[in-house]
Amino acid sequence: MKIGVVGTGFVGATAAYALVMQGIGRESVLVDKNTARAEAEANDIFHAVPFANPLNVRAGDYAELVGCRVVILAAGVNQQPGETRLQLLSRNAMIFGEVVPQILRYAPDAVLVVATNPVDIMTHLTARFAAKQGVPSSRVIGSGTTLDTARFRALLGRYLGVDSQHVHAYVVGEHGDSEVLTWSLVTVGGIPLQEFCERRGITLDESVKQRIDEQVRRAAYHIISGKQATYYGIGSALARITNVILSDQRSILSICTPVEEVVGVRDVTLALPHLLGGTGVIETLSLPLSLSADEEEKLRKSAGIIRAAIEGLAQEL
Amino acid sequence: MKIGVVGTGFVGATAAYALVMQGIGRESVLVDKNTARAEAEANDIFHAVPFANPLNVRAGDYAELVGCRVVILAAGVNQQPGETRLQLLSRNAMIFGEVVPQILRYAPDAVLVVATNPVDIMTHLTARFAAKQGVPSSRVIGSGTTLDTARFRALLGRYLGVDSQHVHAYVVGEHGDSEVLTWSLVTVGGIPLQEFCERRGITLDESVKQRIDEQVRRAAYHIISGKQATYYGIGSALARITNVILSDQRSILSICTPVEEVVGVRDVTLALPHLLGGTGVIETLSLPLSLSADEEEKLRKSAGIIRAAIEGLAQEL
Amino acid sequence: MKIGVVGTGFVGATAAYALVMQGIGRESVLVDKNTARAEAEANDIFHAVPFANPLNVRAGDYAELVGCRVVILAAGVNQQPGETRLQLLSRNAMIFGEVVPQILRYAPDAVLVVATNPVDIMTHLTARFAAKQGVPSSRVIGSGTTLDTARFRALLGRYLGVDSQHVHAYVVGEHGDSEVLTWSLVTVGGIPLQEFCERRGITLDESVKQRIDEQVRRAAYHIISGKQATYYGIGSALARITNVILSDQRSILSICTPVEEVVGVRDVTLALPHLLGGTGVIETLSLPLSLSADEEEKLRKSAGIIRAAIEGLAQEL
Amino acid sequence: MKIGVVGTGFVGATAAYALVMQGIGRESVLVDKNTARAEAEANDIFHAVPFANPLNVRAGDYAELVGCRVVILAAGVNQQPGETRLQLLSRNAMIFGEVVPQILRYAPDAVLVVATNPVDIMTHLTARFAAKQGVPSSRVIGSGTTLDTARFRALLGRYLGVDSQHVHAYVVGEHGDSEVLTWSLVTVGGIPLQEFCERRGITLDESVKQRIDEQVRRAAYHIISGKQATYYGIGSALARITNVILSDQRSILSICTPVEEVVGVRDVTLALPHLLGGTGVIETLSLPLSLSADEEEKLRKSAGIIRAAIEGLAQEL
Repeated sequence: MKIGVVGTGFVGATAAYALVMQGIGRESVLVDKNTARAEAEANDIFHAVPFANPLNVRAGDYAELVGCRVVILAAGVNQQPGETRLQLLSRNAMIFGEVVPQILRYAPDAVLVVATNPVDIMTHLTARFAAKQGVPSSRVIGSGTTLDTARFRALLGRYLGVDSQHVHAYVVGEHGDSEVLTWSLVTVGGIPLQEFCERRGITLDESVKQRIDEQVRRAAYHIISGKQATYYGIGSALARITNVILSDQRSILSICTPVEEVVGVRDVTLALPHLLGGTGVIETLSLPLSLSADEEEKLRKSAGIIRAAIEGLAQEL
Repeated sequence: MKIGVVGTGFVGATAAYALVMQGIGRESVLVDKNTARAEAEANDIFHAVPFANPLNVRAGDYAELVGCRVVILAAGVNQQPGETRLQLLSRNAMIFGEVVPQILRYAPDAVLVVATNPVDIMTHLTARFAAKQGVPSSRVIGSGTTLDTARFRALLGRYLGVDSQHVHAYVVGEHGDSEVLTWSLVTVGGIPLQEFCERRGITLDESVKQRIDEQVRRAAYHIISGKQATYYGIGSALARITNVILSDQRSILSICTPVEEVVGVRDVTLALPHLLGGTGVIETLSLPLSLSADEEEKLRKSAGIIRAAIEGLAQEL
Repeated sequence: MKIGVVGTGFVGATAAYALVMQGIGRESVLVDKNTARAEAEANDIFHAVPFANPLNVRAGDYAELVGCRVVILAAGVNQQPGETRLQLLSRNAMIFGEVVPQILRYAPDAVLVVATNPVDIMTHLTARFAAKQGVPSSRVIGSGTTLDTARFRALLGRYLGVDSQHVHAYVVGEHGDSEVLTWSLVTVGGIPLQEFCERRGITLDESVKQRIDEQVRRAAYHIISGKQATYYGIGSALARITNVILSDQRSILSICTPVEEVVGVRDVTLALPHLLGGTGVIETLSLPLSLSADEEEKLRKSAGIIRAAIEGLAQEL
Repeated sequence: MKIGVVGTGFVGATAAYALVMQGIGRESVLVDKNTARAEAEANDIFHAVPFANPLNVRAGDYAELVGCRVVILAAGVNQQPGETRLQLLSRNAMIFGEVVPQILRYAPDAVLVVATNPVDIMTHLTARFAAKQGVPSSRVIGSGTTLDTARFRALLGRYLGVDSQHVHAYVVGEHGDSEVLTWSLVTVGGIPLQEFCERRGITLDESVKQRIDEQVRRAAYHIISGKQATYYGIGSALARITNVILSDQRSILSICTPVEEVVGVRDVTLALPHLLGGTGVIETLSLPLSLSADEEEKLRKSAGIIRAAIEGLAQEL
C-alpha cells in the first residue's frame, strides 16, 4: 500500500515520519519541486525505519506516484512581505492548478488529502481541479478541523480528568478564526457534558469554556509564536486520515470536503463530521446538525467567510 | 510493572496471552492450584514472546505475587452433575475465601480484577474478603459487562457501517440474562442513534433491536454451544482493564464494583459505567443514569436478582 | 488484505486471534467442517476486536476464501486409540487431499501456510497436491521449526541475560524429536556465543547446553503434559509468517518447504533458514550450512527420518 | 514512567514526538532556556496524543524533572561565524557544566542520554560532571553510533534484499568522520556476509562497500545539505534507547559511554556495542573486538581523535 506526499515542508515531512512511526502503509514517495529537500527528508525518515516499522521511504517525481492509494498535498508557498492574503492564496491556487493534474495523471484512483492552508479553500480548489479529471469530490478530503477537534477533546479531557477517547465533541466550520466549538453536543462517556460535570462536582462556567475555546482556536498562533510553525499535531492527524482510508475503516472525522449547502450557504467547503472509508467520504453526517441557535449562527458566519474567499479568489484567478 | 493471574483455565491463560500480544506490563506470574497446568500455560505463552513483545511470563506460587500492581482472579470450579447453581456458587465462594487473603498477603497494594462467573457476585464477595484486610472496594473491579458493552458496540457498528469506536453505548446490570442494553443513551459520532439512522436511511425498528439485543445477551450461550467455552473476548477485555490501571489512563468502562445503592436496591454489585484510573475505581459515573423508564425498571429487576443471590449465598455460607 | 484459516481447532483459532491482537490484515475467514465450531470461534475472536484492532472476522465456507493472500492450514484429526502414527498420517493426508484443491479453487494465488503436524510431511504433501494445480512449491510454507527457533533464542537469551532479538540461532531439520539446534552458528549481538560467554563470565558447558536443548526439543511434550495441547506459541508464529507475506517483508525464518536435496537426502521437506517475502519462499538460504560435522550428521539423520515417512506414506496411500 | 527532555531544538522535540508516536513512557517534561519554545513544542506534540498514545506532555523547569527515570540531553548552541570548532565545544561544555547538576539535583536517579554533538565528547563531559554528584558512568549514555549502525543495517539490507532486522553489523568509534564500519563482523540471518552474498549471487566488491560506507558516514552531511539539519533518525534512535531503559530490556546497542581503555587509548568515550538495561550500561561487550587488523587500526585512530579533543578541551576550560 503506497502513499504519496507532495510538498515536503515541515507538515508533509512530519506526516511521512508519522506513517513510519505508526506503521501505516508499506511504501511512501516524497515529491517536491526542491528535489534536494525531498531527498534529504526521505533519507532522514528512512533512517528511523530500523527503530520503527518496515516501510520503504524515498523521494521521487510525479511519475513515481503510480499505484498510490492516498496522496497527501502539503505543497504551497509562504506569505511574502507586502503580499495580501488573497495574493498569497492566488499563488497557492496556481500551484495547485499544476500539482493536482500531475498527481491524477499518475495516481488517478488515489484519495487526495489536502493539508495546505487555508485548508478549506485549498480543498475546494482541489476538488474543482480534480473534477476536471472526472474525480468525484468524495475523493477529495481536507484535514479541516480534525486537529482542532482533537485539541478540543484533549483539553476538555485534561480538564475533566478523563481520557480524551471518551470525550465526544467536534469543532466545525472554517479551520481558522471563525471555527465553531460545538459545546452543545459534547458528551463524556455517553453522558451530556453538563450532567457529567454536575455529577463529578466540576465547575464548567463561561470563563472555563472561554479559556478552552481560546486554547483551541488560538493554538496554532501560540505554537507559531514559540516555534514559527506547527507540524506535529497536523502530521499525526494526516497519518490518521491516511490510515482510515488504507485500512478501509469507517471513521467519523471532522474533515472538510465540498458540500452543496450548509446552514443556507451554497457550494462551500468547510469542516463537518463525515463518515470516511476506503474510498474517501462516504457521507456528510451532520446536516442538519442539532446545534444550538448561537452555534448555528456562528457556523453560518464561518461558512460565509469561506464562501466570500472562494468568490474573491474566482475574480482574482 | 508486574501482573498476577490467579487461575489458569482458558480465561486466565487467554488474558495472560493477550498481555504479551499487546505489550501490556513487563512481567506476569501465573498461579494455579494445578501447578503443572500453570507451568504449561506460562511456557506456551512465553514462546509467543519472540513474535510479540518482550515480557517475562512464568508460573509461581502466591509468594511470587509480591510487587504486582494488578492481580486478575480467574480461579473457580465448574458445575458438577446434579449440583445447583447456588451450591456451585458456594464452592466458588469458599475458594475465593482462601484465594483473596493469599493474594493480598503478598500483593497488598494490587488492584484486584475479578473474572470468575457469576462475576457480579464473585466481585461482591471479593470486595468483602478484601475489606477484612483493609482494602477499599475501589480496588476491587469485576469485568462486569465490559465485554457485553464491546459486543453491543461492535454489532451496532457493523449494522450501521461505522467503526465501533464511534458508537457509544453501554450494557449495564448483571453480566447475564437480566443485563440491560441502554438503547436510549446510544450516540454515534456524537449523534443520537435515532437521528443518525434517519439521516443515513437505516432501518432501526424493534425487530432489528431485538436481534442485536439477542446477539449480545445470548452471545456466550451461542459460543459455548459451538466451542464449550468463551475466552478470547473476555481475555482481551481483561487485558484492556489491566492496561488502564497500569498506565493510569482515565477510562470509562462498564465494570462492576460494589455500590451502596442503585435504583433503590442497596449494597449490590453490578455493572455501571465507571471512571477507572491507576488506583482502581475513581467514580461510579452513572447514578442516576438518564435511562428510559423501561430501562430503569429492567435495571431494578437485574439488581434485585443479584441482591437475592447475595442474600441466598449469605445463608448458604 | 484477506486471510483464510482452514481448521479451527486450538491452533487455527489462536492464529486467528493473534492476527486480531496484532492488527495483521484486515479480514479473516474461518473455515471448518464443524461449521458451528467455526462460527463460535469467529464470534469469540470478533468480540476481541473493540479491545484490539479493527479487523473483520467471520466463519465461512471455501467459497469465501476468494481473494485471500494467505491461507493457514490447521485442519486434521487426532490419533485414535490403537491407531498407528502412520495410519493417523494417512487419514490426515486424505483430508489434505480434499482440502488443498478446495482452497486453491477459490484462492488460486494464495500462499499456503501449513500448521498441521507432522508439519514437515504435511507440507510435503500440500506441495504435491498444490503442484497438481500448477502452484509452485515456493508458495507452500510449513511452520517448520519457526517456533523451536524462537524457543531456542528465548531460552538462550534468558540464560545469557540478553533480549532474544539479539540472539541469532536456528533450529533446523524435522519439527520433532530429531531436530537439530545449530549451536555452532549462534551469535549474540554479532559475537560468537563462546566468545560472548567468556567475556561476560558466563558458564556454557555441555550440561547447560543439554538442558537448553532438552527444553527446546521437549517443550511441546512438557506443555502437552500440563495442558493437553500447545497453541499460543505456534499461533503467534503463524501470525508472524502471515505478516511477513502480507507486508512483503524480507525475513529469514526457519520454515519448511520442499527442497531438492539437503545433506545428501533428495526430495524432502524439512526446516532450514529461508528468505521469505510477499510471494512466499524467495530462497533457501543455508545450503550448504556451515554446520559442525556433528550437527551435519544429525541433520542427515533428521532428513532421513522424514524421507522414510514420506516413502512409507506413499505406499500407504 | 516519566521522561525529561532538556533542550527542545529539532532533535529534542523530535525525540519527544517519537515517544508519543510509539507510546513510550507515560509522561514527558520539556525543559528549555527558551521557555516559549519549550511550551510551543510541548503543545504541538500534545496535540498528536489523540492520534497516537495517551501520554502527557508538558513544558517545565528543572524542578519538574523530579521522578524522571530517563533525561535526554539535547541542549547546546550552534557554531557562530568565525568560531572554531573548539570554541564552540567550549561553549557547549560550559552549558553542560550548568545543565547536568541542575538535572541531577531534581532527578538524581535518572539515566542521562546525551544527544548533543560532538556526542562522544559531550558524553565524556557529562560523565565527568555527573561523577561529581556521585553518579557512575554506567548511567551516562551517549547516542553514539546507534543511528549510524541503523543506517548501515538499513542500507545493507536494502542492497541485499533482506529486512534490516536480520542484518547484524555495527558502526563503532567516533560518531563522525572517523567512524568505523565493522564489515568483517557482518552476518545476515546468522550467515557471514561474504558467504551470504556468494550463495545469493550478489556482488559485494570494494566499490559497493565504499558506496555504502560513504552513504553511512556522510549521511548527515547529505541530509544537512538538503534540509539544514537531521532529526528524524536521531529522534527515533533516542526513543529506542529510552524504551530499552524504561522497559528494562536487555539490548545491545552501539551507544557511547566512558571506557577505561580501548585499543590502547585510555580514558576515552566512543561508540562500541554495549549491553543496556533498566539501570543504564550493564557491560561494554566488545573489548577486545574481533576486528580485522585494518578495522582495529581505524578504531585506534578514531579513539585518538576523540582523546585529543578531550585534552584540547581540558586546556581550553
